[in-house]
Formats: sequence, structure tokens, C-alpha cells
Amino acid sequence: MISENIKEFASFFDSVIERLAPSAGEKIPVIDKAMRYSLLAGGKRLRPYLMATGFEAFSNTGWEDDALVPSFATAIEMIHTYSLIHDDLPALDDDDLRRGKETSHIVFGEDIAILAGDGLLNSAFELMSIALEYAGASAGERKSVEQTVLRGVKAMAYIARSAGISGMIGGQVIDVKGQARDLSSLVSMYEKKTGALLSAALTGGAILGGASAADIRRIEEAALKTGVAFQIQDDILDVVGDESMIGKPVGSDEKRAQVTYVSLCGLEQAERDVEKLLAEAKDVLKETDGHCDRIAALIDSLSGRSY
Amino acid sequence: MISENIKEFASFFDSVIERLAPSAGEKIPVIDKAMRYSLLAGGKRLRPYLMATGFEAFSNTGWEDDALVPSFATAIEMIHTYSLIHDDLPALDDDDLRRGKETSHIVFGEDIAILAGDGLLNSAFELMSIALEYAGASAGERKSVEQTVLRGVKAMAYIARSAGISGMIGGQVIDVKGQARDLSSLVSMYEKKTGALLSAALTGGAILGGASAADIRRIEEAALKTGVAFQIQDDILDVVGDESMIGKPVGSDEKRAQVTYVSLCGLEQAERDVEKLLAEAKDVLKETDGHCDRIAALIDSLSGRSY
Repeated sequence: MISENIKEFASFFDSVIERLAPSAGEKIPVIDKAMRYSLLAGGKRLRPYLMATGFEAFSNTGWEDDALVPSFATAIEMIHTYSLIHDDLPALDDDDLRRGKETSHIVFGEDIAILAGDGLLNSAFELMSIALEYAGASAGERKSVEQTVLRGVKAMAYIARSAGISGMIGGQVIDVKGQARDLSSLVSMYEKKTGALLSAALTGGAILGGASAADIRRIEEAALKTGVAFQIQDDILDVVGDESMIGKPVGSDEKRAQVTYVSLCGLEQAERDVEKLLAEAKDVLKETDGHCDRIAALIDSLSGRSY
Repeated sequence: MISENIKEFASFFDSVIERLAPSAGEKIPVIDKAMRYSLLAGGKRLRPYLMATGFEAFSNTGWEDDALVPSFATAIEMIHTYSLIHDDLPALDDDDLRRGKETSHIVFGEDIAILAGDGLLNSAFELMSIALEYAGASAGERKSVEQTVLRGVKAMAYIARSAGISGMIGGQVIDVKGQARDLSSLVSMYEKKTGALLSAALTGGAILGGASAADIRRIEEAALKTGVAFQIQDDILDVVGDESMIGKPVGSDEKRAQVTYVSLCGLEQAERDVEKLLAEAKDVLKETDGHCDRIAALIDSLSGRSY
């Protein structure tokens, strides 16, 4: 079962995070504590899983034995976590609960929450560049420099673009400004806000695994479609979800009079469009030269998700 | 005159920023506008200047002709700028003025100020990794891959560490928590909060320029001493400065009952210690194999600074 597979991965991945997460040392324990509080708050590790499967679809090496994937996957989870901490701040979504736990600014205060977010974003790039530095220093032959460092640099650039103002942060800005008021601009916002980082994970993994330029484009397309479907599902769950499963109050979008996919076209069409997007994503995967069975299984498992 | 030299550099460097700063495109103009507002708010470009001179001390190429230095120097200025935007937020220092202009959250609101800071930090790493990606893609021979990409990866890791929780963000956390209450912990906080990013610039430049491991350590030592001196000067200027020169109200530290170098040991010792640190920094520079005359001249120009 794919969901068992992901759960197993998630519990193993927590130990990877514990090992790799940068620490400020004994003198500044509060920043470590705040970063770890959110980083280890029971995330599903969907993005690291996507990166690992994206990598293994194109590489014969297991992800955990690669010189870069463990650091890059941890970095992606750090970027995701920082975005949640800043998202929850009083000046943005003003959320007190996340995954059923108090949000960072409730526990540590707004000042430390802002700095913990900054710390996680910076640590993400710290971790990736240190992994690249080690790989570069230990690269004996030309081939290995090219394969490891050059692919790593390409993946990092892809991740940075996806997380940045043209990607996730851009989506967040559109959201904050309430600029997505029709279906097509909402979809484009979801692509940036959610799709871009899911693609950073999956496509970043494929780049590290050595996918061709054409396959990188295909993987990206599948990831963006899956990301939009995932975000529409969030809108659906906000209406029909179980509070204990989703970890936040049901109906909060409606309370905020937020424009969502469901508010624009109704529950039924939203559910149909999720299935359509997931099916299209799987079709694109079939065109690649990679072994994408596990990615397809993951997409299947998202259909009808209730968490 | 070195100060003319820096002014000339700063006005040229603004055009480098204009050319290299990532843009979110037409659909999300507010984030570009907010990022540029702070990025082009009349900074002295001290950090990019340090990176350029650090590079040229060890390389025969002019900094502006290097494949990485313009992007890396812009990235450093972006990291510096994001830290100022987040520092000024109501939950942190709650400052309305910076360099004589209204701060980001006053102009754009707190939500966009937080995201503009995130955007600048992310864009910094985006810019560095894209420069590395291009350098990697165009590197034909092994030697050039090694020299450009591997040095670049090393410099980026150094910059990331300096900007992160063991460096600048760590210093900021100590500051926020008011943990530096004696001279030695205050100096250690200044090393992190100010010295680390100045060192990221100068030492990062030296790494890109090909400095030896021993010289990298020396340049770092000089940069950290200069950074601490610079921060003590800020404390001095807060007491004796001219509001129109420093761009913020004089006496604000005292008003906040903030522990500063001056409040702990008085104006006279503070001024003596600045000179001592700057002299030590210059002594260390003399031990390197680099051409450090311009760095030394810059340090000389800082002695007795009034801005």
C-alpha cells in the first residue's frame, strides 16, 4: 500500500532531518527549538517523498545513498515549513493552529517565529550548498564532478526559482492581495503557491537522478497538475473535511469569505476537476523514460484524500 | 579618495542590481516594487564593494568580468536588505524610518514586508545558483568547471553559513532575546549580527578569487574585526551622530534602554576599541598573499566614520 509506504518513509525521514538540520549551537537554543518545533510537527513528508521517488525514477542508486538527495529533500521540507510559519503569522493568515498544534508565533512569539522562518529558509540553502561543497571537494574525476555537482547546481537553481517570487512566494502574494477572483487566475495562483514547491521536489529529484531535458519538462507538468489538484482538495476538505484529520477548523475559508475553487464552481465540479487533473498528470508520466510507477501510485492515493 | 571610490562603485552597482534582480513579472508587480524599494533605497553598497575588492585581491580578473561575482555581490546586498526589512517589523525593532525613508511595512503593509523579505532572501540564493548553473553549463574544460563552479559552490556555502542561524540570524536572535548583557557576549553578538555578513562579502569574494585556505582564514578574521568595529561605531553614532547623516533618530538605543558598547564601557573606550580593532584587522591583511591595499584603505576610511 502506497500510504503505508509514505508513512514508513516519513518516520525514517524524521531521522534524516534530525541528523542534517543545521543547529545554532548551545548559545542560541531558542532558534533551534523553534525551527525543530515546526519541522518535526508531524508533517506527512510528501515533498521529500516526491523528491526521493523522482530521483529513483531516473537513477539506479537508492535516494538515501546519494551524496545530495538527503540534504536536498530536507531542504525542501525546510522551505515548506518556513512558508507555513510565515503564512500563519498575524499579519498574514493569523492562524493559531496548524496540523492540530499551536502555530510558531503562539508558542514562541511573533519575533522568534519570523526569525525561525528566516532561519529555515536560509538553512535550506545552507544545507544544499554545503552538500554541494562536500561533493565538489570529494569529486576525484571529471565525470563525477559533472554528474554530481553540475546536476546539483541545476536542481538547486530549479528549487530556488520554484520557491521564489515567480513560484511559491509569488503565489502567496497573489493570495494575500486577493487577486485571484476567477477560476483561471485561481488555478494559476495554485500552480505557484502549491504546485511550484511540489514540482521543486519531484522535478528537483528527477534532475538529480539524471533525467533528460524533455523528461524534466514532463515531470514538471505532472507535478504542477498534481499540485493544483492537491490545492483544490484542500478547498474541498475545508467544506467537507473532518477537523481531527485536517488539523484545523472546518469552514475557515467560508468564514473569511475567501474565494476558493469550491466557492467559484461548486463541490461537484471541484471533485471532477481533481480527478481530471490527476489523470492528466499520470498520462504525462507515461511519456517519460523514467520508472514512474511509484509516482503514479502516489497520485492514485491522492484521489479522494481525506487528510 | 576611497570614499569617492565607494560612491562611484555604488552608483555603478545600482545598475548591476537593476539588471540582475529577479522579477515576479507583470502579474505580481507589488512584490517587485517592494523588493526594489528597499534594495534601491540608497544603500552604501559596502558589502558588494567588499566582495569586489576581496575578489580582486586574489584574482587578476576585474570583478565585473567574472561569471559569478556580480550575481554573488547582488545576492549579498539582497540578504543584507531582507535582514533590514524583517528587523524593522513591528514584532522586532518596530522602526518607521531607515536611511531616512519610511520602512517597508509602513509603505507596503506588514504582510507584503514579510514576503518582500522572504523574496529577497530566496532571490539571493536563486541568483547565485542560476549563475552557477550557467557557469556549469558553459564550462567546457575540466579546469574551468573546477575553478568556477567549485569555488562558487564553496563561496555560496560560506555565505549561507554566515547569513544563517550560526551567523547573522543567530546574532539577531541573541539581540531580540536581550541575551548580550556584558562586553564579551555583546562582541560575540556583533560578530554574528554584523561581522558575519561583512565576512560573507569579503571572504566570499576572496574564495571566488582563488585565495588559499590559510588566506581565507585571515581574510575572515580581518572581516569579523572590522564588522565588530563597525557595529560599535553604530552605537557611538547613536549617541553623537547627526540624524540627517545616519537616517534615523539619534538616541534611540537609550530610549529603548538597549545595552550597547557605549552603555557598557563609555564613549571613550568605545572609540579606542574601534581604532584597535581596525588596526588589528589591517595587520592580519598584511600576512596574506593577496593585494589587500584597497581593503586596507577601506578600513582606514571607516575610522572616525560619521554616517
